[in-house]
Amino acid sequence: MMKTVIHKLPKLLHGGDYNPDQWLDHPEVLAEDIELMKKAGVNTVSVGIFAWASLEPCEGVYDMDWLGEVIDRLYENGIYTVLATPTGAMPNWLTEKYEEVRQMGSSGVRNLSGKRHNFCYTSPVMREKTKKIDMELSRRFGKHPGVILWHISNEMGGNFTDGTCYCPLCQEKFRQWLKNKYKTLDALNTAWWTKFWSHTYTDWSQIHAPAPHGENLLHGLNLDWKRFSTEQLVDFYNEEVRAVRTNSDLPATTNMMGFFKDLDYCKFADSIDIAAWDAYPEWHSQKDEVDIAVWTAALHHQFRSLKKAPFLMMESTPSITNWKVNNIQKRPGMHELTSLQAIGLGSQSVQYFQWRKSRGSFEKFHGAVIGHTDHGNTRIFREVSRLGKRLHDISDEIYDTCNQPKTAFVFDWENWWALEDAAGPKKEMAYVGTFLSHYKPFWEMGIDVDVVPMEDDFKDYQLVIAPMNYMYKPEYAEKIRRFVREGGTYVATYFSGLVDDTDLCFIDRQPLDDVLGVSCEEIDSPNEFYKNHILYNGKKYDTGDLCEVLKVADAETLAVYEKDYYGGYPAVTVHTYGKGKAYYMACRTEEAFLKDFYGDIAAQCGLENGLTDRLPYGVTVSRRENDEKALYFVQNFNPAPVTVWLKGCFENIETGESVSGILQMSGYSCVILKKQIER
Amino acid sequence: MMKTVIHKLPKLLHGGDYNPDQWLDHPEVLAEDIELMKKAGVNTVSVGIFAWASLEPCEGVYDMDWLGEVIDRLYENGIYTVLATPTGAMPNWLTEKYEEVRQMGSSGVRNLSGKRHNFCYTSPVMREKTKKIDMELSRRFGKHPGVILWHISNEMGGNFTDGTCYCPLCQEKFRQWLKNKYKTLDALNTAWWTKFWSHTYTDWSQIHAPAPHGENLLHGLNLDWKRFSTEQLVDFYNEEVRAVRTNSDLPATTNMMGFFKDLDYCKFADSIDIAAWDAYPEWHSQKDEVDIAVWTAALHHQFRSLKKAPFLMMESTPSITNWKVNNIQKRPGMHELTSLQAIGLGSQSVQYFQWRKSRGSFEKFHGAVIGHTDHGNTRIFREVSRLGKRLHDISDEIYDTCNQPKTAFVFDWENWWALEDAAGPKKEMAYVGTFLSHYKPFWEMGIDVDVVPMEDDFKDYQLVIAPMNYMYKPEYAEKIRRFVREGGTYVATYFSGLVDDTDLCFIDRQPLDDVLGVSCEEIDSPNEFYKNHILYNGKKYDTGDLCEVLKVADAETLAVYEKDYYGGYPAVTVHTYGKGKAYYMACRTEEAFLKDFYGDIAAQCGLENGLTDRLPYGVTVSRRENDEKALYFVQNFNPAPVTVWLKGCFENIETGESVSGILQMSGYSCVILKKQIER
Amino acid sequence: MMKTVIHKLPKLLHGGDYNPDQWLDHPEVLAEDIELMKKAGVNTVSVGIFAWASLEPCEGVYDMDWLGEVIDRLYENGIYTVLATPTGAMPNWLTEKYEEVRQMGSSGVRNLSGKRHNFCYTSPVMREKTKKIDMELSRRFGKHPGVILWHISNEMGGNFTDGTCYCPLCQEKFRQWLKNKYKTLDALNTAWWTKFWSHTYTDWSQIHAPAPHGENLLHGLNLDWKRFSTEQLVDFYNEEVRAVRTNSDLPATTNMMGFFKDLDYCKFADSIDIAAWDAYPEWHSQKDEVDIAVWTAALHHQFRSLKKAPFLMMESTPSITNWKVNNIQKRPGMHELTSLQAIGLGSQSVQYFQWRKSRGSFEKFHGAVIGHTDHGNTRIFREVSRLGKRLHDISDEIYDTCNQPKTAFVFDWENWWALEDAAGPKKEMAYVGTFLSHYKPFWEMGIDVDVVPMEDDFKDYQLVIAPMNYMYKPEYAEKIRRFVREGGTYVATYFSGLVDDTDLCFIDRQPLDDVLGVSCEEIDSPNEFYKNHILYNGKKYDTGDLCEVLKVADAETLAVYEKDYYGGYPAVTVHTYGKGKAYYMACRTEEAFLKDFYGDIAAQCGLENGLTDRLPYGVTVSRRENDEKALYFVQNFNPAPVTVWLKGCFENIETGESVSGILQMSGYSCVILKKQIER
Repeated sequence: MMKTVIHKLPKLLHGGDYNPDQWLDHPEVLAEDIELMKKAGVNTVSVGIFAWASLEPCEGVYDMDWLGEVIDRLYENGIYTVLATPTGAMPNWLTEKYEEVRQMGSSGVRNLSGKRHNFCYTSPVMREKTKKIDMELSRRFGKHPGVILWHISNEMGGNFTDGTCYCPLCQEKFRQWLKNKYKTLDALNTAWWTKFWSHTYTDWSQIHAPAPHGENLLHGLNLDWKRFSTEQLVDFYNEEVRAVRTNSDLPATTNMMGFFKDLDYCKFADSIDIAAWDAYPEWHSQKDEVDIAVWTAALHHQFRSLKKAPFLMMESTPSITNWKVNNIQKRPGMHELTSLQAIGLGSQSVQYFQWRKSRGSFEKFHGAVIGHTDHGNTRIFREVSRLGKRLHDISDEIYDTCNQPKTAFVFDWENWWALEDAAGPKKEMAYVGTFLSHYKPFWEMGIDVDVVPMEDDFKDYQLVIAPMNYMYKPEYAEKIRRFVREGGTYVATYFSGLVDDTDLCFIDRQPLDDVLGVSCEEIDSPNEFYKNHILYNGKKYDTGDLCEVLKVADAETLAVYEKDYYGGYPAVTVHTYGKGKAYYMACRTEEAFLKDFYGDIAAQCGLENGLTDRLPYGVTVSRRENDEKALYFVQNFNPAPVTVWLKGCFENIETGESVSGILQMSGYSCVILKKQIER
Repeated sequence: MMKTVIHKLPKLLHGGDYNPDQWLDHPEVLAEDIELMKKAGVNTVSVGIFAWASLEPCEGVYDMDWLGEVIDRLYENGIYTVLATPTGAMPNWLTEKYEEVRQMGSSGVRNLSGKRHNFCYTSPVMREKTKKIDMELSRRFGKHPGVILWHISNEMGGNFTDGTCYCPLCQEKFRQWLKNKYKTLDALNTAWWTKFWSHTYTDWSQIHAPAPHGENLLHGLNLDWKRFSTEQLVDFYNEEVRAVRTNSDLPATTNMMGFFKDLDYCKFADSIDIAAWDAYPEWHSQKDEVDIAVWTAALHHQFRSLKKAPFLMMESTPSITNWKVNNIQKRPGMHELTSLQAIGLGSQSVQYFQWRKSRGSFEKFHGAVIGHTDHGNTRIFREVSRLGKRLHDISDEIYDTCNQPKTAFVFDWENWWALEDAAGPKKEMAYVGTFLSHYKPFWEMGIDVDVVPMEDDFKDYQLVIAPMNYMYKPEYAEKIRRFVREGGTYVATYFSGLVDDTDLCFIDRQPLDDVLGVSCEEIDSPNEFYKNHILYNGKKYDTGDLCEVLKVADAETLAVYEKDYYGGYPAVTVHTYGKGKAYYMACRTEEAFLKDFYGDIAAQCGLENGLTDRLPYGVTVSRRENDEKALYFVQNFNPAPVTVWLKGCFENIETGESVSGILQMSGYSCVILKKQIER
Repeated sequence: MMKTVIHKLPKLLHGGDYNPDQWLDHPEVLAEDIELMKKAGVNTVSVGIFAWASLEPCEGVYDMDWLGEVIDRLYENGIYTVLATPTGAMPNWLTEKYEEVRQMGSSGVRNLSGKRHNFCYTSPVMREKTKKIDMELSRRFGKHPGVILWHISNEMGGNFTDGTCYCPLCQEKFRQWLKNKYKTLDALNTAWWTKFWSHTYTDWSQIHAPAPHGENLLHGLNLDWKRFSTEQLVDFYNEEVRAVRTNSDLPATTNMMGFFKDLDYCKFADSIDIAAWDAYPEWHSQKDEVDIAVWTAALHHQFRSLKKAPFLMMESTPSITNWKVNNIQKRPGMHELTSLQAIGLGSQSVQYFQWRKSRGSFEKFHGAVIGHTDHGNTRIFREVSRLGKRLHDISDEIYDTCNQPKTAFVFDWENWWALEDAAGPKKEMAYVGTFLSHYKPFWEMGIDVDVVPMEDDFKDYQLVIAPMNYMYKPEYAEKIRRFVREGGTYVATYFSGLVDDTDLCFIDRQPLDDVLGVSCEEIDSPNEFYKNHILYNGKKYDTGDLCEVLKVADAETLAVYEKDYYGGYPAVTVHTYGKGKAYYMACRTEEAFLKDFYGDIAAQCGLENGLTDRLPYGVTVSRRENDEKALYFVQNFNPAPVTVWLKGCFENIETGESVSGILQMSGYSCVILKKQIER
């Protein structure tokens, strides 16, 4: 059922970023690398990231022999290469000769040489130089038996500011993009509602990108600029793919960065062959691991949902990062647990940044499999090696399965941009935090979910949840209307459905008021002096900092406000529409309510994890399946052992033992259970 | 006794900002507006703010027919127009063609198009274009029977940075302004004390405005730059008034912004015909409303004092703002109470920003009488309509009265600038907060006050209070000396009378030491580890973060410090001088002391509210009067009902009932009582 | 034994910054100054700081007669002059005519006129103009009998940003400096590890100084830029010295600023004749004075160690500063105590900023001996005068002694820069705070220390402590190896010895692992949820935010971790190497541990204060000595009296009394005791 993307190595990958270019003067290091990789069970490394200066030391002169030797040697030792294009950072000869290749900031200052992701997305020179070196890489290595995947650039857009370039070339391209989108200035002026503050555009040339010292409160402009920037970078990505494909038919991807607001990753979905992301959760930064595991799981779901298929965890640290305020070591066991968490949520790989610590510069203290001293003789190396063996042993059992959720969360970048740019009831709207708080009950119930943009068709889901879905893109309301009418369950919240895709308010009526049976009359943002509660099923829950006062046209009230001027007013409602139900949550609440509410919803929808009726605190389960079997990844994020009561009989895929009734788990551990599916 | 300024409509105004230019494509919306305005008791709207792009869609081409139709239609329906000039924001055709019209920031970067209040105060082009469109407005509407007042620009100086322009034109104008002021560089060098750090100017061209990357610690320069900026904007205002007067003799105003530090509003007093300000208190943001009501009342007093006459509340929200960190809805009743608070403190209007929410851009979620949906069928609309009726009913009784305080607070912008720019005992001197803490006891006693700059003559007051009056402008000391000698009571505090109007320290003696009978030897800024108290009338009060050690020449000690090295030293003194008394407060204290102290002072001066001897917590009274009657606005800012014990017999002007003894008030309410004055 | 530097006045200096140029129009003020200086026991003032505009009012025209008169008059009245060169601030005629003399910021924006320390370190124009005026000063006053010392510029580098200039001239000079250092780009590329992020330099012209919009994560570049900036300013200093020496053989110094990170003060040591610094501790800012006294003492030690000889406290406030967030007055007694603290730690002076408050500009409210009013009739003046007399009386007894510690702390600017620029386990590494926490036990024991850079030879010490000595400069490891082998005691901590002097990690082994007997396998940065303890000598101490997991090759474990995955692992070790011992502290701990640990170390090394076995809380002692005597400055920083139990018999040098057994001290006081040394 699952489509294999990486044909040459249809296995769980284990390895990571490898930078032999930094050690060409130290052949003994390169030799040791091979030996230690084999010890650690590494089967795949990513090579060539940030290697432009080594691959093209001066303009037009390519030196790829060292790379060829590295790839050969790896291959000879059974290790495969993910080959990167080097555009993650530009060499100084390029940036110094051609000013236009360097990004310009929003205040109009051109960056100097240096930094990473410093390239202009539009520059013809940059595109030409990129094309040439990518074609050369393709020519040299596009058919090498050891190369399995193209790794286009690296963490695109990660320029430490806002992931975009404001140079004149980009601005001119933006004006063309707008002309193409709006056709007329009248249409643009209306869409952006420029008459407010009298900023009607009378010539296309009057349009400038948002700037601190210029226009920055025109939400439509802000939104279109972000859309343009994403599309321009997707276009750059596509050009790179075309270049590396000149002598290669390998799949391609690019590694993404979690909740990276600057780029709408969903727009890359059609262009990439397999999704990939770099996972850096802040393990051990809170009193327990639950919220961090929730954050991580949500993102694994998100990246799996990009292609609705297994993805790659392209980077992770075996130990520690070096760029957070405080960098704490993964406790013994955590590395194995969190690596298997990724696998359980659909990853086909556990890749590290980085194989070996560099001697100098910014990331020399970032965690790595191999450090500056002691090399193979460390706790970290031993944990990595143990995991390598485990991945190798379970690979065949797992490889052709994937998670297949019946629940979808709408998480949409354009909504995120618009919602948090809107000047509304609060300055901080916390879209990500709100999404995570609604997702958390599903993690606690061990129910997998998809995370999709509004463009999804929603057809295969039983339950769709859309927290703070402020913007309704064209057709969204109609798709949801159809989804509910045909039997789906839909959950909407406060601050939803207020604007269209150019951030213009809907007037006269709210688009889904027929489906929801309610509409919002006013929204209050109470502070600490106006704390309130809702009453639901006989229990009382705290409300939060957003509370809507509803008008109910035709809906059942499930919860009411306790007091204040909207005391007794509905806070949660449900409306039966067609064969389905539409819920509306009028206010923020404490987590306890979300847990109880979604517990009830899941029960009504018949959603369950299939493994157990009640997961202990800090324990979850995810499920990969295919037509024949379901694999349950039971994950204990507590440092202490726990007991899980199983529903039925399962097989531990690693020990082969049959397990039923009680499952004993040690602290920070993951057990993989299998059940055959009877059809 | 009161001079009527708005002859065409001598009534309490009710209405607000109206932007029909955003809805010209929606005639049904414009028609609905008229109907709903009539329902809501609206008699006046402000039109044309931010409408430049609609009025002059391209250079020199005026399109004012739509505006004529709007004004006509309003007038036909009994609704009057406050007509705005459109300089609050510039159209793109203007800013793109003429670079010089755009402001330059202090770091030398010219703003791009966009923003509001982005115009250079000096630019000849801007002044010419402004003059032309203002004259055209005057030609078209200057004698329209429905137009009652000119609304010059909008919230002048509100450019979100520091309310000024640093372009070369402004800097050159500044140099001329300085030449005119100082005549010689020697005089300027002495006034600014430039020998410190060797920055003696030897040519006028060497002078630059304060800049982050240049001179910014020369207090005299900073001060003169702010003075110049205010004067340049007053000059711009005057030019606009001259332009709109070419075919009109209507009064003019501009709407101001409360404690807006960047502009010395007192310098506008002579130019405006009536004062106007936009009131956005943070109601419901604290544990109770008292401090917010105090803040608001102080500002109403301030703007009434500008002309010592009734003023206009030109903007307020009927419900919620959208630009604060947290925007909470006004609770039921609050809108009526706070609107009547303004009236009770001298406002002749309750105007809103905004009549109708825009569909797009920055303020689409700002509170309005009419929202995106539900229109006339909301709580907000009903509250506004009820207030509209009430204002209509009380208008005649109230219109020709005004507050006539016998107490004045010195609150002076130039002192504010100098005080907070001075590097003295503390970084944060908190001039506004200090003023408010001294004013609060008067609010609690229900005693109205004037709030005046040092230029006042102080002749008609019994009591003058000047908190932290760091700078003494020329003649100030002499005016105060005369005021006290002739029987007035004066209260001075720590950190007063230290510098002249160019921020040069007085040397040898402090200017009012003869009147006060004390002088300051040293000032201490104790922190949490050096908390102290003063002892006054047998009670002990906390001192704050500024404590002076005094030398007493000839004054009575009223309070002493409890301990530390100045334990036993005088903390509060009084000196009889001529027929009056001069008090000196040597330190910051907790509010309880200010309440007790000013209670004693008020009793000595025979100041009282005339209504009651003791107001409950959260309740105040303000008084508008004329030769025949006094009107008492009794305001209950508590959510719960209260009882007020009246001294004597009054008439409730709305019910016509006679009230004496107990007055019962509901939560968040205002009652208006009348007493005939017997002369 | 002590070398006298200031031959003309071999006495304790008392006086301060004097700015008669601001008062030339007020001859009565200048006359009063002389009278009050004599009353206050002032024998030396610094003249000419910031006087360029007065000395050279326009280009090439010198007006030094006023200065001659001032110096003459002072001399006639027995007051000596420290003569400043005026480069602390530039006159406007210079900065306006020659753009190149003004600094450029890291973002490429040239400063405007104004500010202080605004000069380019490289500009030929600036150097030429400086040379000329310095030569003129030398010509006029180089042999004046009243002038005793050259005060070169003022607080060099104190430009309120980062103490450097980024203009093209400086950048070009930097490239030359790099060529000179590295010879080849290959060497530079390796040293800076530029292959990381592909930033290999292929031409010297590609190198730019670190910039926010360019390269800023290349640690080697950052480090070399700071080195270059220091060296360029040392070079500027040396040029000034050469100029003032053209007609003078007086010694020269420049006043430094404590823990001023931007300049490596150790690099000035060879160029200055005597060290000088401006001491502004935040007395009274905490619950008691201990940590502030520790901070101050550490810096006195640091500046004494620069030349390993007595130094000058060139500025201090007699009362209050005006540039801190909160400026609190020195309590009675504190000024005398803190002035004698400086003397006790090796200062030959108590100088003030400032003699008289200016009338205007930024420092008009900074504390001074003479204020705007009251002049000689204030508490401050009386305290200063009393101190003046005391200094005069003790001068001869003290002058030729100095502190002679046997303990050295390694505190190294280059290590500071590299350590805090490194992206390692934490964002904030707190080098200064760590150093102070290790120094504090010595202050509490009354044991003087030297504070030296890694270039020291360490030969004369018994104990060397190197907290967080991240970088090992060339030869450092070998010097320490020799030091321990020959009997010294060395204390190293976590995060030490990781990189060489270009910030390249040592690989394969840590350089001193043979001496320490341990190496670090991993470093953890636990947060509040992972609090741990160490167990040492039966007691339990909190650990902090850095904990290393060690590998012990050959060392004795003195303390172990209590729990977590490294529970039971060594936390403190000692290794006997040759005749000496090497301690390793693997983690941050609470202060209590450091106190106990260093108490044990001091006992083992036989280090003691020679006065008493146990100092009360808040009391310390420092010792100045020569071949004949030891002088003990016993300092009580408590506001309350204390009792100190003396070991043996001493003479109070001021009363002549013999003291033994109990020494009674009043609050905030210093007693000076003498003991003859028997050889």
